[in-house]
Amino acid sequence: MKAILGISNRHVHLTEEDYKTLFGDEPLGVVKELVQPGQFSSDKKVSLKTEKRTIENVRLLGPLRSYTQVEISKTDSFSLGLNPPMRNSGDLDGAETITIVGPCGEITKSCCILANRHLHINPKQRMEYGLVGIDVVKARIVGEKTTLFEDVYIKEDENFTLELHLDTDDGNGSLGKTGDEVEIIY
Amino acid sequence: MKAILGISNRHVHLTEEDYKTLFGDEPLGVVKELVQPGQFSSDKKVSLKTEKRTIENVRLLGPLRSYTQVEISKTDSFSLGLNPPMRNSGDLDGAETITIVGPCGEITKSCCILANRHLHINPKQRMEYGLVGIDVVKARIVGEKTTLFEDVYIKEDENFTLELHLDTDDGNGSLGKTGDEVEIIY
Repeated sequence: MKAILGISNRHVHLTEEDYKTLFGDEPLGVVKELVQPGQFSSDKKVSLKTEKRTIENVRLLGPLRSYTQVEISKTDSFSLGLNPPMRNSGDLDGAETITIVGPCGEITKSCCILANRHLHINPKQRMEYGLVGIDVVKARIVGEKTTLFEDVYIKEDENFTLELHLDTDDGNGSLGKTGDEVEIIY
Repeated sequence: MKAILGISNRHVHLTEEDYKTLFGDEPLGVVKELVQPGQFSSDKKVSLKTEKRTIENVRLLGPLRSYTQVEISKTDSFSLGLNPPMRNSGDLDGAETITIVGPCGEITKSCCILANRHLHINPKQRMEYGLVGIDVVKARIVGEKTTLFEDVYIKEDENFTLELHLDTDDGNGSLGKTGDEVEIIY
């Protein structure tokens, strides 16, 4: 089966409470709709601060969520001097502590992870492709640096569109680009 | 067969002439011997400059060579606003133009590439492992983000030690570390 590739750069999700601490009463605006319905790249950026370094201009994705989470690449983690665990979105067990800085304030929380490789799919597609009961697949990106990514986790929701999410390390290492068609293997 | 993994961060090789332009008469010192005999991490650093950005503290590897070459990751290339081709070391066909800045001067050359994935091997090992006539292999890094890297080019020399070289995108994407034992598949 084929899926569309989406490469996730470092980004942040915020709760409403944390949003208010960082941005006050400013409304959250949409810059660009993402492939997954309802998700969007917002008009807000934050800085990520550790004792070692600060990375500026990190995009806040919307809408606001029930948890605050910072997703970075392993390459970013060396730059920041952190060692975050690889996690499913929303699973902050063992997450690294990081400071998120906005124009109105900052918050420091254990919320920094490396996102796992994952395939967004809805139940109908999962049924059609024979993926019911299969939770981990592989994805192959073909090119000058052909790469077979194992440990790709299935992420199912009624509203999802079929899309493979990789971080910038995986995406750039394989020379993959957002919008590329990739092969899913299981 | 197994090989040891070496992850190459962005780095620079210089000719004697370019070294003199950047560092004058300062001698080139050794900070650390690398796995490949005779190669070393030097005591000199440069900056890489483009119209978009400057990356500082980029290590010069020694000894000096017959060509000047800048090896960066795809992630670095986005940061610098370049689109370098993937190449074998020493093949600068279509290389991107970049400015290398040292304490005594700077040079601007078409010498910036993405290094290909490659396996260092000597002729005796190549014979022993049945790799004579095989120029491209695969390498698998096993862990939380297991990855099969295809398009790994064989690089043979009398003096080489068996070692897989990946750049930081591939290395960090697969959570591989310098010194890890990896599986070579062919």
